[in-house]
Amino acid sequence: MMEQNKESTVARLQAAKHESGKSYSQLAEETGLTNVYVAQLLRRQAQLKPDTAPLLLAALPDLPEDHVREMMRAPLRSYDPNLIQDPTVYRLNEAVMHFGESIKEIINEEFGDGIMSAIDFYCSVDKIKGVDGKDRVVVTFDGKYLPHSEQKSEHMVSRTRPSEKQ
Amino acid sequence: MMEQNKESTVARLQAAKHESGKSYSQLAEETGLTNVYVAQLLRRQAQLKPDTAPLLLAALPDLPEDHVREMMRAPLRSYDPNLIQDPTVYRLNEAVMHFGESIKEIINEEFGDGIMSAIDFYCSVDKIKGVDGKDRVVVTFDGKYLPHSEQKSEHMVSRTRPSEKQ
Amino acid sequence: MMEQNKESTVARLQAAKHESGKSYSQLAEETGLTNVYVAQLLRRQAQLKPDTAPLLLAALPDLPEDHVREMMRAPLRSYDPNLIQDPTVYRLNEAVMHFGESIKEIINEEFGDGIMSAIDFYCSVDKIKGVDGKDRVVVTFDGKYLPHSEQKSEHMVSRTRPSEKQ
Amino acid sequence: MMEQNKESTVARLQAAKHESGKSYSQLAEETGLTNVYVAQLLRRQAQLKPDTAPLLLAALPDLPEDHVREMMRAPLRSYDPNLIQDPTVYRLNEAVMHFGESIKEIINEEFGDGIMSAIDFYCSVDKIKGVDGKDRVVVTFDGKYLPHSEQKSEHMVSRTRPSEKQ
Amino acid sequence: MMEQNKESTVARLQAAKHESGKSYSQLAEETGLTNVYVAQLLRRQAQLKPDTAPLLLAALPDLPEDHVREMMRAPLRSYDPNLIQDPTVYRLNEAVMHFGESIKEIINEEFGDGIMSAIDFYCSVDKIKGVDGKDRVVVTFDGKYLPHSEQKSEHMVSRTRPSEKQ
Amino acid sequence: MMEQNKESTVARLQAAKHESGKSYSQLAEETGLTNVYVAQLLRRQAQLKPDTAPLLLAALPDLPEDHVREMMRAPLRSYDPNLIQDPTVYRLNEAVMHFGESIKEIINEEFGDGIMSAIDFYCSVDKIKGVDGKDRVVVTFDGKYLPHSEQKSEHMVSRTRPSEKQ
Amino acid sequence: MMEQNKESTVARLQAAKHESGKSYSQLAEETGLTNVYVAQLLRRQAQLKPDTAPLLLAALPDLPEDHVREMMRAPLRSYDPNLIQDPTVYRLNEAVMHFGESIKEIINEEFGDGIMSAIDFYCSVDKIKGVDGKDRVVVTFDGKYLPHSEQKSEHMVSRTRPSEKQ
Amino acid sequence: MMEQNKESTVARLQAAKHESGKSYSQLAEETGLTNVYVAQLLRRQAQLKPDTAPLLLAALPDLPEDHVREMMRAPLRSYDPNLIQDPTVYRLNEAVMHFGESIKEIINEEFGDGIMSAIDFYCSVDKIKGVDGKDRVVVTFDGKYLPHSEQKSEHMVSRTRPSEKQ
Amino acid sequence: MMEQNKESTVARLQAAKHESGKSYSQLAEETGLTNVYVAQLLRRQAQLKPDTAPLLLAALPDLPEDHVREMMRAPLRSYDPNLIQDPTVYRLNEAVMHFGESIKEIINEEFGDGIMSAIDFYCSVDKIKGVDGKDRVVVTFDGKYLPHSEQKSEHMVSRTRPSEKQ
Amino acid sequence: MMEQNKESTVARLQAAKHESGKSYSQLAEETGLTNVYVAQLLRRQAQLKPDTAPLLLAALPDLPEDHVREMMRAPLRSYDPNLIQDPTVYRLNEAVMHFGESIKEIINEEFGDGIMSAIDFYCSVDKIKGVDGKDRVVVTFDGKYLPHSEQKSEHMVSRTRPSEKQ
Repeated sequence: MMEQNKESTVARLQAAKHESGKSYSQLAEETGLTNVYVAQLLRRQAQLKPDTAPLLLAALPDLPEDHVREMMRAPLRSYDPNLIQDPTVYRLNEAVMHFGESIKEIINEEFGDGIMSAIDFYCSVDKIKGVDGKDRVVVTFDGKYLPHSEQKSEHMVSRTRPSEKQ
Repeated sequence: MMEQNKESTVARLQAAKHESGKSYSQLAEETGLTNVYVAQLLRRQAQLKPDTAPLLLAALPDLPEDHVREMMRAPLRSYDPNLIQDPTVYRLNEAVMHFGESIKEIINEEFGDGIMSAIDFYCSVDKIKGVDGKDRVVVTFDGKYLPHSEQKSEHMVSRTRPSEKQ
Repeated sequence: MMEQNKESTVARLQAAKHESGKSYSQLAEETGLTNVYVAQLLRRQAQLKPDTAPLLLAALPDLPEDHVREMMRAPLRSYDPNLIQDPTVYRLNEAVMHFGESIKEIINEEFGDGIMSAIDFYCSVDKIKGVDGKDRVVVTFDGKYLPHSEQKSEHMVSRTRPSEKQ
Repeated sequence: MMEQNKESTVARLQAAKHESGKSYSQLAEETGLTNVYVAQLLRRQAQLKPDTAPLLLAALPDLPEDHVREMMRAPLRSYDPNLIQDPTVYRLNEAVMHFGESIKEIINEEFGDGIMSAIDFYCSVDKIKGVDGKDRVVVTFDGKYLPHSEQKSEHMVSRTRPSEKQ
Repeated sequence: MMEQNKESTVARLQAAKHESGKSYSQLAEETGLTNVYVAQLLRRQAQLKPDTAPLLLAALPDLPEDHVREMMRAPLRSYDPNLIQDPTVYRLNEAVMHFGESIKEIINEEFGDGIMSAIDFYCSVDKIKGVDGKDRVVVTFDGKYLPHSEQKSEHMVSRTRPSEKQ
Repeated sequence: MMEQNKESTVARLQAAKHESGKSYSQLAEETGLTNVYVAQLLRRQAQLKPDTAPLLLAALPDLPEDHVREMMRAPLRSYDPNLIQDPTVYRLNEAVMHFGESIKEIINEEFGDGIMSAIDFYCSVDKIKGVDGKDRVVVTFDGKYLPHSEQKSEHMVSRTRPSEKQ
Repeated sequence: MMEQNKESTVARLQAAKHESGKSYSQLAEETGLTNVYVAQLLRRQAQLKPDTAPLLLAALPDLPEDHVREMMRAPLRSYDPNLIQDPTVYRLNEAVMHFGESIKEIINEEFGDGIMSAIDFYCSVDKIKGVDGKDRVVVTFDGKYLPHSEQKSEHMVSRTRPSEKQ
Repeated sequence: MMEQNKESTVARLQAAKHESGKSYSQLAEETGLTNVYVAQLLRRQAQLKPDTAPLLLAALPDLPEDHVREMMRAPLRSYDPNLIQDPTVYRLNEAVMHFGESIKEIINEEFGDGIMSAIDFYCSVDKIKGVDGKDRVVVTFDGKYLPHSEQKSEHMVSRTRPSEKQ
Repeated sequence: MMEQNKESTVARLQAAKHESGKSYSQLAEETGLTNVYVAQLLRRQAQLKPDTAPLLLAALPDLPEDHVREMMRAPLRSYDPNLIQDPTVYRLNEAVMHFGESIKEIINEEFGDGIMSAIDFYCSVDKIKGVDGKDRVVVTFDGKYLPHSEQKSEHMVSRTRPSEKQ
Repeated sequence: MMEQNKESTVARLQAAKHESGKSYSQLAEETGLTNVYVAQLLRRQAQLKPDTAPLLLAALPDLPEDHVREMMRAPLRSYDPNLIQDPTVYRLNEAVMHFGESIKEIINEEFGDGIMSAIDFYCSVDKIKGVDGKDRVVVTFDGKYLPHSEQKSEHMVSRTRPSEKQ
């Protein structure tokens, strides 16, 4: 049921934002969230937390109440695979695939055998001036470092079967 | 360079195990690791930790020293996509794909909007008897619960640019 | 016909659960089933057995009668391939593909040349505390061991043609 | 290591058969196996059982001893995806995909909600005359019926955690 | 036009069968067809022949007349590629892909360089008892042997151009 | 084993043709085969028949004897999927895919519910002048018409089980 | 807009043909076109030319006027990729892919480095008797030979930039 | 055979160019060809014509004679599908896919129902200054317009069968 | 929301053009844009700029006002992957893939290590006469040269963290 | 030729780094480049500039001279598609695909209809502490904003054909 409603819910949420005339960055300032996260909320790609709901409602007073309730459910995260056709998204993907192995090796050198979490994760888009004075886009990915666990039997609480069988 | 050596390193590691005549579960007991993790180590899918290296060497004395050093590097994790053809691997994949949405929803209900980590993660294979007395395979996936972070600007340490620009 | 109804049937079943306010784990307790299996039933990925129908109806009294009848038919099992995009499902798939060959080899060592059945199979999701006191998700796959049969002609009842031709 | 050797092992096994001048069906008669199973053995797609090894060696005396030992290990089952290009293999695949849903529904009607196992399974190729006196190929798939288990908690031996936690 | 109607036609045909309460095997007995073929007819994957139409109508009197006429047209044969997700269909496909090269080679040995036709072809599903007394599914593929023709110019009636050019 | 040799065998066969200085069409005239079929023989995509072997040897005296023997075995038919990149092959494929449904419907109208066999099949390439006097390529596909069989139980010789069970 | 209408236009065109009771070959005779081309016209895969429109209208008087106008627009040529599942279309594709490299090489030998055009192209389906008196399908592909141009700068009219820059 | 040599031939041709120190554009000037075409020749993607061979040899005197002979054979045109990963190639592909339908419709409006040939085709890369004085790359595709032929039976020289049958 | 409206917006825009009876090239002349760009605007693949809106409205007075506003929003660029089936689009793609590596190398030689931008980019379709007096299609891709930047830390304005940490 | 050498060149470059015992970040400090860019240089994914070559040689004195020359050529950028299997790379890709549309929309709001260049682009990996004192990975993508150009004919220098034709 949740998934059925996603597309129409998003259309309504986007309409509410459109009518407010506010940008994602403005909404971000008003709610204390990153601009990317606000956009994710309004596309049902993130869960609206109870403490944040009133802030979002204050910023977008036209949000219908049942949609706010829906936004507080854990979403099924997804995307249209054709999205990669869009030049903006492709360029990001190109950077990840071409630089991916280098990024991985630097994480290994600086942190150890682990990854950057995409769950305990922040993302923002910023506008800065380059050394030539021209506009530049800065996309920041900031994720918690997660080391691959060494799987020691004594630390695996779920696995006490050998003794159970006795 | 690391990746070049992977295939031949694995062949050597497997040969050392073969000559020892020990099973993964025996090696697991001797090293205090899960049986799946030992198998991953010997296929260069996990990093051998310094404290564990002597235990593994004690269990597999024929391991060549330079291979042990290689095993202590962070590996590039990978698999042959055709592996899915093998009936055992396919059955596991079938279970994940057919039960996946149910598992996700139960995690949401029991824990909140988050996932089971595959990094802070344990896996073991156990042999038990079913209620009909027949052998059963138990594969346990035990991963830390990671909640999707709410991306609050004040918590995003990496993003202090607005104030920087002043 | 069966397949046509699947999507709308699932929407109705999910609505009935939603209105009950019960979680899959609560329903599991009330019906004596695993929590994953209850979720599969309510997504038409498993067949409701006659003895279990009254238990499910007791737990979810709003289930419409014709839907209960539909739930008792053998379903065509399927999933949306894009489901793999969801982070929870991807992590499970990642574990299976990266650990798959190790799991297979341990099954071979412990049981012989065979597989873990995905048909005579149980699956549950549990919540435990790790050694660090943090929440962990445990997904258990428990399937009957099936040895690859040696195909002896005398045991192949269906193949008595050579004698028939006489 | 096992997988590395597969291709060269198969070449040797096929050479031994070629030199014997015997067909798969002849080898099947001499070993008491189905003709398809003998072919699978000689392509390392099935495990040679201890009792059958002497029969196969009697039929193919040139089989090198180390290869016989290798044949007794559980193989990693695989195939070249381009095999589907071959007209014989394509026709079989065409039949399965076009008739698949019908076969499934008949199994449901005749047996219940379950499948034909591909593990406890026999396969043979036979040559018969049709009603018009022309040669016909008969491929028989004979697999054990496996009912999808109803996942009752009390029957899931691996899951006794709730009581454990006390 | 034909293709447009396929889905709705199949829904109506299945409904007629459902109301009759008869299984495919019962319909097979009453019409003298294989059970798989009856199922194909009711899914518009085969053409209903004039002599068989009255038999089918006798067995399923509720079949609407215009649908019977539609069933007598040559269908565009097709299937949903996701059908492979269903465990029953996957097991059949697994057997074909893993055993395919062996089946091909046995056909070559027993018949020559040719294939099993999937057009002059019979398929049935049968229920038997195995040597252990358990139920087994037998799927029989019975196709005419078609030798690859040697392409002799004098036998290629369509190619008389060299003489035409004079 | 057969497949291992394919690539090197083809290289040798092509070299023999190259040294002869003859075109496929010349070889076709000397052997009484279509030009396409000669090309298939020299690429191990067709089986050399005993009566034709001496004709081919007369036309290409440098063919090594062991390769002629190899050419008399049933080949595993295959192609490189990237072949579709070549403009000539793509144009043929384009015609088949864009005209395919029309060709199918005309076959249905003119012959009935059946197909053009690709096994009992002839193919040739001819050079003609168009009405404008320009060179044109004519590719002729000439295959036996195969009607889809109606699967009558009494005609399915392989299926006599119901009576067997008594 | 054009593309939106394609599906419904084709349904109407097919209905007009169906009501006429004429086959594609009959329509071909009446319009002086090949049977395949008539079928392409009625599936909006070819453009109806002004001189041919009255002939087609005479053969199919029920064609609605606005559809005739639509048929005179250049179509966006396309096909459903699943069409390859149909056995008739697959056999054609199989022939092209397996014989493709041979056809290409013969064109090179007989014509030079070029291709058979799929644009200046004729296609027909004919019914003939084989040497055994059985029906055979003949599909003829007849395309203009197009040599790959040698790209001489002086012949490239569009490229006069170097002189322009002066 | 031809294809076997392609990779090593290209390596030798590129080495000859490298040693000459000349760019493709210089070679283009010396041979009277477009720069893209020269590059295609040195990658065996085009056939070297007899009149051009001495010009190319004059420009690249180190070209080995047997390679020049090889260059005069019709190549099997191909490319590595991963080439699309390169940012330069991707940008070209992006333009074609995003602008493709527009280009097609303009060709239809300006020329009629036909295409730009990729066979009778010229391609060049030029360097110009934009209105802002910055360097710009100009890639010119210049192909002959080919109208889709109306397939009139009387113009299909290859199809004279109806009269033949008499 | 934007994306939802795309298909219907395009249908309306195309209808307005159709009613005007003007070609893309005529609209290009009246608006001072390239013909390809006008076509992109009317398919919502480019953003209508404020200064150009009145020119377009003058050329197409029937454009509805709300659609003009919609045209001024940044579109999500996309295409139907099946578009590649159309012969015109395929030929362009064929040229890019077969000539791609040559084009890349010439850009490197003439400009340096960089690419042709597909963003600061012009495209037009022109009709010319070839040296043989026949119509030719010229598709011009004209993009700004973008050199790959050398990533010097001091030029990366966004990265001042090391000093921040103090 | 260039591409042939890539793999072995990278192995040598990585060996030189390994022997130096320096991390990418150390090399970055010594050369004034970002750490990701240094890693790209040592994997032949970026071109070594003349001014930077001595700095790199100073940092890695064992770099062989011919490899330094090779590093100064424009590389063919590529990656192994299986790289996406590595958990670190997958997480980055997951973030791009799930957040992609949001990032695009914020760029549109903040900058206009354009993209973040992946060519005039900087990337770095940094290690910071989160608000909870735990290690976090920061991946920064910093690219020049490129507005989609409005394609005005008068600004398209390459297109002066209409006047040329006079």
